[in-house]
Amino acid sequence: MYAIVPAGGVGSRLWPLSRRTSPKFLLDLEGHGRTMLQTTLDRLAGVSDGIVVVTGESHAAAVTAQLDGVRAEVVAEPSPRDSMAAIGLAAAILHERHGDVVVGSFAADHAIAHPAAFHAAARTAERIAAEGYVVTIGIAPTAPSSAYGYIEAGAPLAAPLEGRAVERFEEKPEPSTAAAYLASGRYLWNAGMFVVRTSVLLDVLAELHPELHAGLLAIAQAWDTDAREESLAQHWGTLPRMVIDRAVAEPVAARGGVAVVPAEMGWSDIGDFEALAELEPRPARLAVDAPGTYARATRPVVVVGVPGAVVVETEDAILVTTRERAQDVRLAVDALDGDLEGLR
Amino acid sequence: MYAIVPAGGVGSRLWPLSRRTSPKFLLDLEGHGRTMLQTTLDRLAGVSDGIVVVTGESHAAAVTAQLDGVRAEVVAEPSPRDSMAAIGLAAAILHERHGDVVVGSFAADHAIAHPAAFHAAARTAERIAAEGYVVTIGIAPTAPSSAYGYIEAGAPLAAPLEGRAVERFEEKPEPSTAAAYLASGRYLWNAGMFVVRTSVLLDVLAELHPELHAGLLAIAQAWDTDAREESLAQHWGTLPRMVIDRAVAEPVAARGGVAVVPAEMGWSDIGDFEALAELEPRPARLAVDAPGTYARATRPVVVVGVPGAVVVETEDAILVTTRERAQDVRLAVDALDGDLEGLR
Repeated sequence: MYAIVPAGGVGSRLWPLSRRTSPKFLLDLEGHGRTMLQTTLDRLAGVSDGIVVVTGESHAAAVTAQLDGVRAEVVAEPSPRDSMAAIGLAAAILHERHGDVVVGSFAADHAIAHPAAFHAAARTAERIAAEGYVVTIGIAPTAPSSAYGYIEAGAPLAAPLEGRAVERFEEKPEPSTAAAYLASGRYLWNAGMFVVRTSVLLDVLAELHPELHAGLLAIAQAWDTDAREESLAQHWGTLPRMVIDRAVAEPVAARGGVAVVPAEMGWSDIGDFEALAELEPRPARLAVDAPGTYARATRPVVVVGVPGAVVVETEDAILVTTRERAQDVRLAVDALDGDLEGLR
Repeated sequence: MYAIVPAGGVGSRLWPLSRRTSPKFLLDLEGHGRTMLQTTLDRLAGVSDGIVVVTGESHAAAVTAQLDGVRAEVVAEPSPRDSMAAIGLAAAILHERHGDVVVGSFAADHAIAHPAAFHAAARTAERIAAEGYVVTIGIAPTAPSSAYGYIEAGAPLAAPLEGRAVERFEEKPEPSTAAAYLASGRYLWNAGMFVVRTSVLLDVLAELHPELHAGLLAIAQAWDTDAREESLAQHWGTLPRMVIDRAVAEPVAARGGVAVVPAEMGWSDIGDFEALAELEPRPARLAVDAPGTYARATRPVVVVGVPGAVVVETEDAILVTTRERAQDVRLAVDALDGDLEGLR
């Protein structure tokens, strides 16, 4: 299997740690000395014959600097065209070079506590993908979260394949719906992990999104030639913007072509400070009437009477919110303007 | 009138700005370039023939450094003996030097927005004190505060004295009682401002607290001689610890000897960050769903979803609380121990 790592997205809800210039995947969020991207590459090295990181041109140098000995190719997008173009380009390039191979796409900024469980699931997914399925790895939910999309799992695949058919993909649900999903035992979190043969993916694109398919193929054919830049300049900006869930996973699931491998791997997308606090508790140095605080600062933080307070200090800003309101940090980032614009 | 300025009290509820080593009166809380003590001295210079600042030995050098051209004597207490001993010593020294004069005691760490109103009240109080009353300046309440003691005003004094008899002093009331006080129009805030002839004060002490009186007299008689240190060492530590309200104001009020001058002078004791935020609003640079924030930091503060958040950054600590819980900062200071002990 070849691994594709789309490295995009600022992670605005982790401001002021995350910035346009230092997005979430370039940060050592867990504080263990490796960035999210580096941890992702470390994890993929064990299950892949090669890795392609797809990132924005402005981050290509930083991504390359973080490879740190891991053999991976960095594909720089001239402009953001969303996940389908990013993953599709990497898949088309790999197909051009290696023929019909299995590729797996894994985000650059998710945390996985149990890599061995991930490795097992990835190998299972690879075996199923080899049979022609579009395969997703679904996370066994541990809470009725409204923050993730869900996958409804159906009947088991025919032996010896260890997976289940996907009935459908569901959007982020209301809390009551999320609770029902959890209770049913049929639903898994959609972590955006897709494993598929390049020929299967490209055939689906040719059928459903011919314009995208044609553009990607043209770029991929020129990729390892002198015409790469010219072809990128000619085609990239014309590619339709789509996410892989909408473009491929949902329509293929509707005709029974998607399988899911359920996995328990201690997964987190570290979407906000609530998730980060769950993953790596950092209570304030002193808290009075304030259980569950999260404090990340260069100096002692003292909290009085603000349960679940989140206090994050960087060189140039201090954020104060609560774990309950952590999702809304994005609203503050959107509102940064005037002389605060530079803090984005 | 001679002014006596007791400069004591850390002001723990203003931590991390206030510290044992830099108590509230030494701070420029209002951010106008003068400390609370300096502003107090500036204000008193206009209504006094001399000023005596009484402070702890450990703060005497800092107080002297802040005099900044204002002619004032600094009396250093070898150890804290509470307000009655501090004010009583200054009064006894002044009595020894100048005979029976009027003295007025005014805290070093209160803010007064309208100094002219204070000056007028102080002069009125001085005239009443000259007639033998213990006089207090009472603050016309602007809210049903539970944070202050109250003075119940009685009948007007006989003309031409412009003041009222004091019926009694009341402790900090419950909110419902405070509301009733405010509605009645008969109650004033006790700002701890006392004006009295030295002979009257010393006679009351001789009558009610003879041990304290004897000790203070002994020290005062030795003060301007070579025997000062010896006398302080011998007597100071033996003086009973009392506050002037309990020791003098309440018992004298009970026999009709206390008068009050009501005044509206924009007074605040800046007791906590709620009071400071009222006095000098400093909203966070950006607040989402968070009205009424107070932020004092060297870098932009962003608050999301914490109404009335208080964020105070110093070189060595960050405090997060709310204006509603500002009184409880003291609890956090009390709990500083281990390697945080040095932050007190």
